[in-house]
This record gives sequence, structure tokens and C-alpha cells, in this order.
Amino acid sequence: MTDATDPTAGDGYFTEENSAEVVIARNRDCRDERLKTVMDSAVRHLHAFVKEVEPSNAEWMRVIEFLTATGHITSDWRQEWILLSDILGVSMLIDAIDNRKPRGATETTVLGPFHVSNAPHYENGQDICLDGKGEKLLVTGRVVDTDGRPIAGATLDVWQANDEGFYDVQQQGVQPDFNLRGIFTSGPDGAFWFRSVKPRFYPIPADGPVGQLLGALGRHPYRPAHIHFIVAAPGFEEVTTHLFTPDCPYLHTDAVFGVKADLIADFQTIDDAARAAELGFPNPFTAVDWTFVLARSEETPDDAGQGDRNA
Amino acid sequence: MTDATDPTAGDGYFTEENSAEVVIARNRDCRDERLKTVMDSAVRHLHAFVKEVEPSNAEWMRVIEFLTATGHITSDWRQEWILLSDILGVSMLIDAIDNRKPRGATETTVLGPFHVSNAPHYENGQDICLDGKGEKLLVTGRVVDTDGRPIAGATLDVWQANDEGFYDVQQQGVQPDFNLRGIFTSGPDGAFWFRSVKPRFYPIPADGPVGQLLGALGRHPYRPAHIHFIVAAPGFEEVTTHLFTPDCPYLHTDAVFGVKADLIADFQTIDDAARAAELGFPNPFTAVDWTFVLARSEETPDDAGQGDRNA
Repeated sequence: MTDATDPTAGDGYFTEENSAEVVIARNRDCRDERLKTVMDSAVRHLHAFVKEVEPSNAEWMRVIEFLTATGHITSDWRQEWILLSDILGVSMLIDAIDNRKPRGATETTVLGPFHVSNAPHYENGQDICLDGKGEKLLVTGRVVDTDGRPIAGATLDVWQANDEGFYDVQQQGVQPDFNLRGIFTSGPDGAFWFRSVKPRFYPIPADGPVGQLLGALGRHPYRPAHIHFIVAAPGFEEVTTHLFTPDCPYLHTDAVFGVKADLIADFQTIDDAARAAELGFPNPFTAVDWTFVLARSEETPDDAGQGDRNA
Repeated sequence: MTDATDPTAGDGYFTEENSAEVVIARNRDCRDERLKTVMDSAVRHLHAFVKEVEPSNAEWMRVIEFLTATGHITSDWRQEWILLSDILGVSMLIDAIDNRKPRGATETTVLGPFHVSNAPHYENGQDICLDGKGEKLLVTGRVVDTDGRPIAGATLDVWQANDEGFYDVQQQGVQPDFNLRGIFTSGPDGAFWFRSVKPRFYPIPADGPVGQLLGALGRHPYRPAHIHFIVAAPGFEEVTTHLFTPDCPYLHTDAVFGVKADLIADFQTIDDAARAAELGFPNPFTAVDWTFVLARSEETPDDAGQGDRNA
């Protein structure tokens, strides 16, 4: 008889018991060591999953149909696979692994699909809300290093949804081009500021297979209200992150798990007629102040020795 | 601070440490118990896989690109997802789980993509090779129950590739329609027989993402030479299986792991001029004799209590 734990013994044919070992042994001639490591792990977990849930053939055909439908809705304009990765928490897990930072640096979160690379550069103080719609918001803050020293000349690439939960690129012809986005630069004291409107929560695209899966799982498709930032400065690790409003009904149930406690900002109501007049805002208005902390490029992440993975 | 092992404690936000638990907790309102069980297991294994291999974001984008390409090549005529399931051994694992049979019943293997449902019914003895090409083969055998008693009136749906490794449906206009396929019925003694040609090994479709993956893994795309059978009789469990020739170079490395030791038949060379003349074969010729053993529908599989899964 064949020793089920050693597929090179005996005939080495596939059985229910030795299934993963036989498949992994078949990949032994793979010359790409990293691919082999990834596929060995993938096969081991995939077979363990199948043995745990014991899908019937009919159930497996439903999985095949789900994959087929997810593949067919994906296009140059719609990435249903990333959406699937997002709602299963995999995108955020990879973000966490890929961005282990020295203690105290600002946390990262998902980039999302609505960033554009050619947003306008503005002077501090600019109002990025080009159509005047929504509840006025003042955003102030500083960019500092992990020792609290100001970083001058840092760029802050900002973008957000409007008060109806739509980005400009989702409403071309309705919102002005480049509405609610722009790139700011920190001053000598590390400070930046701009005017905007309060963002609103919005659903991820829910009319495809991933939306159907969310529905079947009893989950909603909403992301809590947030403002996106990419903060960068020479000699520092770039940070892709959000600021979340503290009062959003979906703050604890972000469909893509992007919320981190350290990214929830204090959006305050300011009752100051003179300040409001200066800003051209009605009184009272909403304001948020935030400090971004960047890690130096040469600082060692908490988990050392991972740098090679990105090579 | 949040207890990382209990996502309902504290704020319950996603962290690298508690990632799977947070995602699983989010599915708590799922009303489909089976879906919840499957997704909980899928999420746990998927996160364990990611934590084990720690993909960089760039590597994850290569996975997204692979899924996108696999989705886009899949059509009504090409099922790249099933091919992926096949080369990872998942199709055979599900076949094994779904077909646990009483000891002694003929083993099952994959159906494959080349079965057609309207093959001609033939009398025993028919030559299913309609174009006369290939090395002549005599197939004889019996269908019996697990106590060895003959099963009369069993149907044997047979199909195979020709001696160049192609099925008729792959070479329409080159091979005659229904070449090398047909349905036979066992006689009162359970016996059946037909004439054919020796099948040849052939590659699974290797011009897509799955073929590229096989190549990168250092694997070939070939399936060892075989004849397909679906054997059915009222009151018995239907068996979808193959007979493999014993001398094929790919017998130990079937690209889809379909080979089982108990399905390798003894294809013998017969030197008998009178018998060859009777059959209209040149002398010598090849012959194989095989007994199919069917389990009664009411017989309990080795692993009891799994029947509900198929409901």
C-alpha cells in the first residue's frame, strides 16, 4: 500500500487523504522559488478549506458560476476582483502587512478606486469645493516626523466624495472637473489648510456578483464618510490614508474594513462669526485639525527583513 | 485597548492580528447557514494564506491580474475556472468527497469537458471508430454489484480521444460526428463489448492563464490516455470514471490528478489470427477486459451522514 503522507512513495496517485501533498509535489520543478512558496501555501489552504466544508459537486459549480460572473463584469472600468478582495478584508490585510511602520507614524488605509493622478496644485486656504454645494468644512493641520519636528514642503494629495456620496469622476457633467480634490504643500512650520465640505458615506458598486454576495451575507455596501490623503515628503515614507468623520452610521461596519481607530478625526462645530466671515463660511461651521506623522525612509519597520518581498 | 481576539469588544476595528475574526463577525447576520459556514471557513483560510506568504501589494496586483485574465478568457465554450480547479487538484478532491463509496465499488474520476449527452445507442460489438484510423482495440467487460452478481440492462456511456489525442467535438469536419462515442447496454450476464481504437494522451487547453501558470510551475499540460465511461443502472449509484492505459508516459503526472491506481487497466496484445479475423482486426491486436462494480443506491457510504450536503 502507498504511504499517504509521502506522495513520492509507491504510485503517488491522488487520494482524498494526500490530496494537497500530491499537488504540491507536482510543483517541485518550479524554478520561481517565490511562486512555488505562494502556490504551495495556496494549495494547502485551498484543500484544507475544501476538506473542512466538504462542498458537494453542485455547490462547487455555484462557486464556478460566481467566479465566471465576477470575471465577466470586470472591465477596464470595473474591477470586481479588487472589490471581492476588499469585502473579504484581504486588501486591508495586505495594506497592513505592506505598511508596517515605526510606532507613532500615521496609519495607512486603502487607496480606493477614485484617485486621479493629475489633480490641481493649490495654495493653502483654497476651497476645493468648486460648485458650492454641501456643508462647509475647514481642514487644518501639520505634517511632522516621528519626533514631532515639522516637515516643510510635504505634499498632501486630497480627494473626497461630495455631500451626496459621489466623487467628481462618478458624476462627470454634473460636478465640475476636479471637484473636491487638489494637492497642497506644507509651509515652513509643517502647516497646511484648505476649505471643503463635509463628505458623505457612499456604497461600493453593489450591482454585481460581489454586491449579491454582500446581500446574501446580510451585509450593507456602505463606506463611512471620509477624506482621502496621500502625504509625501522627500526622505519619508509616503502615507496613503483617510480621515473619517466620527458621527457616520457606517463607521463600525465599513464594507471594506478600511477604518482604523487612529484615523477617526474630531470634526468640531465652530461658532465664531468673525472667523466664519474671514473664511466666507456661514456661522457656525465644521472644522477638523489633524497632524500627519511620517516615518523617515531609513527607519526600520517594526517587522524587519520584509523589504525584499517588494523587490 | 481592544482585545484582538474578540472583535465585539472595544471598537472592533480591523487590525493585522484580528483580521479574519473581524470579517467573520461582520457576516453574523447571514441567514443562509450553509453560506455562512462556507464563507467563515473561506475567510479564515484566505487570511491564514495571506499571513503565511505576506504578499506585497505589487504581488497582490499580479494575483488580481491573473484572476482578471482567467475571467476574460472564460466563455460559453471555454471554462478556465474549472481548468484552474482541475490543475490545483480541487476538482478531484471534491469528486472524492462527493463519491465516497462502499468498499469494492468502482472508483470515480473527473467527467471532463468532452462528454455529449446525445451519443448513439449501439448493440454490443459495434465499432465506435467511424473513420477507421488508429490501432484497433477490443473492449470487453461486465457490470456487477458489490457482491459480484451481474447487473443486466446497465448502460455504459463511452467516449474517448482518437490516436492523435483529439475528441470528435474538437475536430468537427475532420472526424465524423459521434466518432469514438456511443452508449452500450449490458446483457443478462452483465456483459458488454465493443470495438474501438487505442486512445492517445492529450493536453488540456494550455493557451490561457492556467496554461501559463502550469508552465511557470514547471508542469506539462497532458492527460494520460484513457477511455471515459458513465455506467448507470436502476437502483445503483451512477459511476463517472475512466480506464487508463498502463503504458502512457503521463500516467504518473496527469495534469488534473484524475488517475487512480484502481483505474489502470491491463491492455494486452492478443496474437490470435482467427479471433482477429472474426473482429475484422489485423493480427495481433490490443484488448482490455474490465469489470465495473456498482453500489446499490441504498448502500451507506463509508462516511455516513453526508447526504444532506447535496440537498
